[in-house]
Amino acid sequence: MRVLGIDCGTERTGYGVIDSDGRTHHLVSAGVIQTNTKSPLEARLQEISREIRSVIARDVPKAAAVEEVFYATNVKTALKLAHVRGVALLAISEAGLEFGEYSPLEIKTSVVGYGRAEKRQVQVMVKSLLHLDEPIDSEDACDALAVAVCHATHSAMRRKLEGIHA
Amino acid sequence: MRVLGIDCGTERTGYGVIDSDGRTHHLVSAGVIQTNTKSPLEARLQEISREIRSVIARDVPKAAAVEEVFYATNVKTALKLAHVRGVALLAISEAGLEFGEYSPLEIKTSVVGYGRAEKRQVQVMVKSLLHLDEPIDSEDACDALAVAVCHATHSAMRRKLEGIHA
Repeated sequence: MRVLGIDCGTERTGYGVIDSDGRTHHLVSAGVIQTNTKSPLEARLQEISREIRSVIARDVPKAAAVEEVFYATNVKTALKLAHVRGVALLAISEAGLEFGEYSPLEIKTSVVGYGRAEKRQVQVMVKSLLHLDEPIDSEDACDALAVAVCHATHSAMRRKLEGIHA
Repeated sequence: MRVLGIDCGTERTGYGVIDSDGRTHHLVSAGVIQTNTKSPLEARLQEISREIRSVIARDVPKAAAVEEVFYATNVKTALKLAHVRGVALLAISEAGLEFGEYSPLEIKTSVVGYGRAEKRQVQVMVKSLLHLDEPIDSEDACDALAVAVCHATHSAMRRKLEGIHA
């Protein structure tokens, strides 16, 4: 299954596409949508929307996953982020993709094995899981790939359990 | 100038379109986008986006205005609302409309004359300002019209001041 992971941000939105059977994962593409911080939010939303749509059109994923929105740090930042997330969810829904959302804890547990993992450990594990020679240097793209891996794993597990119960 | 006002909500999103020279306002259309509360957020965002776009395509406003997001009541609700707001801003930006955002205080001051006005007073003033025989019965559509009136007034004032300073 081809999965798109998105790491939403108002300044930088990471994306990563993988092919996965739930256990073996391969990198298809990864990148960062960098928006102009001097542009108003609505212009940035348009840029982010256009880029996400073009990644979906190019790589044709079957599913997409996004981190749950949380407001541990700053409500104002979280509210801005939720605007971006709304636009990402719209693109996913319009493309008819299977959709999953996961907490940071679930994502880290899925990728590293425990929920309190540090950024650096996520980076190392994403490199290893995707059989890459070099780590993904963008933290945002790396986080997006981690969400994609998390969804691929969960989705495969779910299908397996449904098979057992069917 | 033709102005679209949007009152964002995850369950009900009000919209209202007016023609205005900044002092005299006329109703073009108003309504509510009611989404299925049992549908997941991403499906509702798609519904809201589609409806807003179709209103823009039908009534061809030159400008659009939305209430600022605030989180006085509940952060979780505000975060959901921000997703809807993101989708509304995207539609506005994609259509290339002039965009304004206003606080509830600014909107009420603009429509009723003071910022602590009650819902009922806004409804009465919207009816009067738009020369309607009957009040708009949907609170969401009425709030959307109030945002539109607020933007029309502010925008006309801004153009006037720019004219003076030019």
